[in-house]
Amino acid sequence: MSFEENIRKVVPYTPGEQPQKKVIKLNTNECPYSPSPRVAQAIKEMDIDALRKYPDPVCASLVSSLAKYYGLSDDQVFVGVGSDDVLSMCFLTFFAGQKPIIFPDITYSFYEVWADVYRIPYKVIPLNDNFDINVSDYICDNGGVVIANPNAPTGVAESLENIEEIVKKNQSSIVIVDEAYIDFGGESAVGLINKYDNVIVTRTMSKSRALAGMRIGYAFGPAKLIKYLNDVKFSVNSYTMNMPALLAGKAAIEDDEYFTEIRDKVVATREWCKKELKELGFTFRDSKTNFIFARPPKGNAKEIFEKLKENDIYVRYFNKPRINEYLRISIGTDDEMKKFFEVLKKI
Amino acid sequence: MSFEENIRKVVPYTPGEQPQKKVIKLNTNECPYSPSPRVAQAIKEMDIDALRKYPDPVCASLVSSLAKYYGLSDDQVFVGVGSDDVLSMCFLTFFAGQKPIIFPDITYSFYEVWADVYRIPYKVIPLNDNFDINVSDYICDNGGVVIANPNAPTGVAESLENIEEIVKKNQSSIVIVDEAYIDFGGESAVGLINKYDNVIVTRTMSKSRALAGMRIGYAFGPAKLIKYLNDVKFSVNSYTMNMPALLAGKAAIEDDEYFTEIRDKVVATREWCKKELKELGFTFRDSKTNFIFARPPKGNAKEIFEKLKENDIYVRYFNKPRINEYLRISIGTDDEMKKFFEVLKKI
Repeated sequence: MSFEENIRKVVPYTPGEQPQKKVIKLNTNECPYSPSPRVAQAIKEMDIDALRKYPDPVCASLVSSLAKYYGLSDDQVFVGVGSDDVLSMCFLTFFAGQKPIIFPDITYSFYEVWADVYRIPYKVIPLNDNFDINVSDYICDNGGVVIANPNAPTGVAESLENIEEIVKKNQSSIVIVDEAYIDFGGESAVGLINKYDNVIVTRTMSKSRALAGMRIGYAFGPAKLIKYLNDVKFSVNSYTMNMPALLAGKAAIEDDEYFTEIRDKVVATREWCKKELKELGFTFRDSKTNFIFARPPKGNAKEIFEKLKENDIYVRYFNKPRINEYLRISIGTDDEMKKFFEVLKKI
Repeated sequence: MSFEENIRKVVPYTPGEQPQKKVIKLNTNECPYSPSPRVAQAIKEMDIDALRKYPDPVCASLVSSLAKYYGLSDDQVFVGVGSDDVLSMCFLTFFAGQKPIIFPDITYSFYEVWADVYRIPYKVIPLNDNFDINVSDYICDNGGVVIANPNAPTGVAESLENIEEIVKKNQSSIVIVDEAYIDFGGESAVGLINKYDNVIVTRTMSKSRALAGMRIGYAFGPAKLIKYLNDVKFSVNSYTMNMPALLAGKAAIEDDEYFTEIRDKVVATREWCKKELKELGFTFRDSKTNFIFARPPKGNAKEIFEKLKENDIYVRYFNKPRINEYLRISIGTDDEMKKFFEVLKKI
């Protein structure tokens, strides 16, 4: 026997490229604006000597500021190293049964990867040709449900009514609503956590709060589920959030004015980009996110992706069935998008 | 059926207390000195605007500086959110077989917790009454081996000869050598990674480099094992290390002079504390770490632990068979230890 038999072999998730050279980066749905000046202040004022000590394992100050902001109690909030960490912990915690969990075929591709690494059986449910979910598909015997709302990479938002119906009709399993992009549009399911005991809502500061580099994600849920999540978290790593992340997260959530300002700017640019794309003959579902998932008139997405790249403009292309004629274009600043359209028109 | 059946129920690891009030904190093996001034510099110079972007997923700059420092190649180094994250990933990656993994009964108690959360079968092997391992106990059919060297909470270091024997005789399983405390004494197994294909050595910046609050751990291993580890890591969270951690880790590893200075200070204080404890009738195995695991003359460890706490001096007490007459005392500054002995003598 060899040790190879003991090794967990997996096909990992491939994140969007992080080129080291200066490019127009519209490939990972980052925010084109700086984090809140309060984040800069918090980091500047950080007590470097205190770094010799472990950070607060329960992340009390960050949890409390999130709870306060969203009108929840502290025991309804969980924090982690980006929403990837939060979602990973959710998969590990809530999907330990034998029945397959379900999620759409076109969605955040990490769901399949987590199911795979934790050996969770799963079944993907095709979206319709319009990239919408069919609610009745989710009313079935299952080990858990995951819905990104708004969805990525499609940008499509489902109604809260639909989300609630799925939560309501799945009382025997946990429903995770991944709201990474909710700040840019759509209706949040956060209110459902006081109404149902089987729903978890996840969020991130990487997109709308311009803190991708700090790795801060969070989840809302009934206190009982958050307790289960924390038990697993404390069985994996006692201290996941380092001191700068705790301080920056608190500072960011407390600066609502700045948040609203940059979020509104991204939304305004997105609406303008929709018009431009339409004029160029691109087709897309209405986006409620900080990206647009669009099909070029000739469907030659791969070719355009490569040509943009040659011009130092990075967008995301997924070489996968059903979506290989689409580009996912993150919303940059107005200047970046002007440059993008300039190059696109030449192509 | 209820969703409870799908939930992973665990008994989490309990970290040492992180009291919010000012105390003499000798309970979590932190460094009593500040991090390197270069860390302060790196944080001060950090480009806050860059936080809007994801950090480098492969952590190239930190990995390279570690590889350079330890004379390894980049593909032999893995980094994570503290050595807890690194060890957790190792358990998930390398212990996916059916055979029980083995580790000592008295050791870092997180090993049992990781085995439990990932449903890994395990068997604990009693240390002898002197807290030493018996090498022949580890030469058996197993799914993996974990040895902390020097061991915690005992402080005992095994010879490199013994460690190598265990690695050599376990070619069919991965042997993890947890060297969280190696900077304070003992012989590192890092040289074995170029000699054997089944060994992983883990480290942390939380103790000897005074960066517990930044959460930086790392592992060395043959390139093939590091690749497996990264595949699993990229299946859990693409970006585990945030930007401040990447910058601080690099700065810390590059300041060898400061590292040596504070490490030597801790070691000098430890040697002095050993003498004091001996005079007070405490018994202990010779410690090669930044703590001393000592039995008070009357074995009344719990009582002393509580009385110290009343005096705002926190040490660690484990209410567990075989070690419930011991205190684990982290090494503080000379002043902190003087105060500790002052109070201890009164008790």
